Amino acid sequence: MLGNDVTFLNHGSFGARPTAVHEHQEALRRQVERQPIQAIDADMVELMPSIRSSLATFLGTATDRLDLVANASEAVNSILRSLELSPGDELLVPDHAYGAVHQTLRYVAHRTGATVKVVHVPVPVHDSQELVNLVQDAMTDRTRLLLIDHVTSPTAIRFPVRELAAVARARGIDVLVDGAHAPGMLDLKVDSIGATWYIGNLHKWVCTPIGAAFIVTDPDRIDTLHPAIISHGYQQGHVEEFNWQGTRDYTPWRSIPFVLDWIQSEWGWDEMRRHNHQMASWAHVMLCEAWEVEPISPLDGSLLGSMATLALPESIRASYQQLGPLHDHLRDEHAIEVPIMEWDGRLWLRVSAQLYNRPEDYRRLADVVRIMAG
Amino acid sequence: MLGNDVTFLNHGSFGARPTAVHEHQEALRRQVERQPIQAIDADMVELMPSIRSSLATFLGTATDRLDLVANASEAVNSILRSLELSPGDELLVPDHAYGAVHQTLRYVAHRTGATVKVVHVPVPVHDSQELVNLVQDAMTDRTRLLLIDHVTSPTAIRFPVRELAAVARARGIDVLVDGAHAPGMLDLKVDSIGATWYIGNLHKWVCTPIGAAFIVTDPDRIDTLHPAIISHGYQQGHVEEFNWQGTRDYTPWRSIPFVLDWIQSEWGWDEMRRHNHQMASWAHVMLCEAWEVEPISPLDGSLLGSMATLALPESIRASYQQLGPLHDHLRDEHAIEVPIMEWDGRLWLRVSAQLYNRPEDYRRLADVVRIMAG
Repeated sequence: MLGNDVTFLNHGSFGARPTAVHEHQEALRRQVERQPIQAIDADMVELMPSIRSSLATFLGTATDRLDLVANASEAVNSILRSLELSPGDELLVPDHAYGAVHQTLRYVAHRTGATVKVVHVPVPVHDSQELVNLVQDAMTDRTRLLLIDHVTSPTAIRFPVRELAAVARARGIDVLVDGAHAPGMLDLKVDSIGATWYIGNLHKWVCTPIGAAFIVTDPDRIDTLHPAIISHGYQQGHVEEFNWQGTRDYTPWRSIPFVLDWIQSEWGWDEMRRHNHQMASWAHVMLCEAWEVEPISPLDGSLLGSMATLALPESIRASYQQLGPLHDHLRDEHAIEVPIMEWDGRLWLRVSAQLYNRPEDYRRLADVVRIMAG
Repeated sequence: MLGNDVTFLNHGSFGARPTAVHEHQEALRRQVERQPIQAIDADMVELMPSIRSSLATFLGTATDRLDLVANASEAVNSILRSLELSPGDELLVPDHAYGAVHQTLRYVAHRTGATVKVVHVPVPVHDSQELVNLVQDAMTDRTRLLLIDHVTSPTAIRFPVRELAAVARARGIDVLVDGAHAPGMLDLKVDSIGATWYIGNLHKWVCTPIGAAFIVTDPDRIDTLHPAIISHGYQQGHVEEFNWQGTRDYTPWRSIPFVLDWIQSEWGWDEMRRHNHQMASWAHVMLCEAWEVEPISPLDGSLLGSMATLALPESIRASYQQLGPLHDHLRDEHAIEVPIMEWDGRLWLRVSAQLYNRPEDYRRLADVVRIMAG
């Protein structure tokens, strides 16, 4: 449904919907309006088990570990605000984590007297073991929680979440994996990761309507988890608590089984992931060469999914100290939508690769930035 | 957009949308899909001040006191979970409050050691002063919060919120008015009520798309309020904190100015409210007579908005001890959608009156229930 007047290189922020998905949801929305009580109440009670079951299969988890929320921020808030923390407890997070998640950690720490400990992971990153070592070295006897992104937002690097979860949990540390970007981008087997909680968005790389995300919880810890919005189901178990969080448009959740089937039959999930990963890896190499910048992860794409973050050429960074004007210049003057990220005191550019993208899109970006850099 | 195969007497739960409103939102949703980054990010930053300003005028408050959320449950959770409570603090609430709100109070009390004190307000209620006296008598030196509904959900009674707010705040008690049903039903002048927080839904009686609600906060207390979903804006003031709560479908918020104008020009808010109040008051009297049941509020409608709750005839209550089967019988056998409420150990029926309802709708309900009662 994207307009053809824009070169859209930011699938990663909010995703994009195939027309068939939008139209499926719109039909559901009209059905809701025909009889809102029936559709929002009785129908959802009847449909939720099969919605959760189809998503659980896709994610590689069990239905009774899975709950739905509206977005990854809501998932993170539900988990962090359910923790019982004490002064002195440490919440450990790499500096590659998403900005909003850092804010939620700070809020929870402020309320409880816990401390947020941010571990700096310098770039370039050479391999997974380096990431494991850096994060592991930051764990202490006071660490209560490790929060790691599966695919980081500012730097687009795949973290070795399975290895880190094993190390942390062996020390009694809870592990929250923020997989906001992972579903649909990586071949997920959530239960094999072994996290305490794994959360993800569906409206990014699974291409559902906006408003669909999930939490997978270790069965041993599921009784202590509550949604950010406490409602009728409180103390009736996590399924009742999460299934109803006030009057919402529940059609994004209802659309999940359709989207999973439709993409499988139209393109195939494996083929889509392979295509996107190859294109992102190719664009990564091509842009590093075009701009003569050092890559922040290996050029073989071994730490990439379907996004890549690039350093901007030095001369561009000299003209643009802030992200807003540079982003707006690319959008307004060159009709290129691409995110400029501020991280570790510098500006970066992140490209996404989705089926609607063509090599020409990235070549245009390469040329525009090269010319801007003089 | 309601199907004409159902007699829809439950506008109160989830509202219903005029076709023009649905189509306006659908056009916005398509616009979002054309360029999601522009629409969700830059456009919302630009539009939020005018959205909040037009709603503030409608509600009788100032723009800088007003924040948007998705529904009343999210509003209540934001407020209650922002409170700094200590063991021994009392949270006072009449037993007419909404079930989900009781649950949020219990959760917050459980986390902090505070106590929820439920004050029983017996029916029938004869006048406002009786309500003021009962609630006032339950206040103690330990009462930190009074939570009162403007129009109650199970009993559909208008509480004297201005008088109760004055009494409570004079004693240093914070007052949260749950106006879930009030906007569009009552002629609101929120600031004149004098509550610490006033919250309401827009997708009920204002007929916006599902996913629009608000919080109005006393300026002296606004710095201590945080959304249930902490995100990028944390510690940048309430406007930044509430304007972005993760990736959501923000088109319900964007539709607010259109709905406010459209209903004003199509029917007029005053005329709509007057029509609905008159019809609810008439149905109240007619149903009490038809079923020979005692009214729970005065028959002149002085404590009603555009809903009325009726006791069910004794013989019906003998056959149906639970609300589900009775609701489903009316829906499936008689194509009448009307909520059966459980409250104070008994079953009740609540009718709503909205422009699409006709006197015949209520007469059909009267006949069906009379025949069922034998």
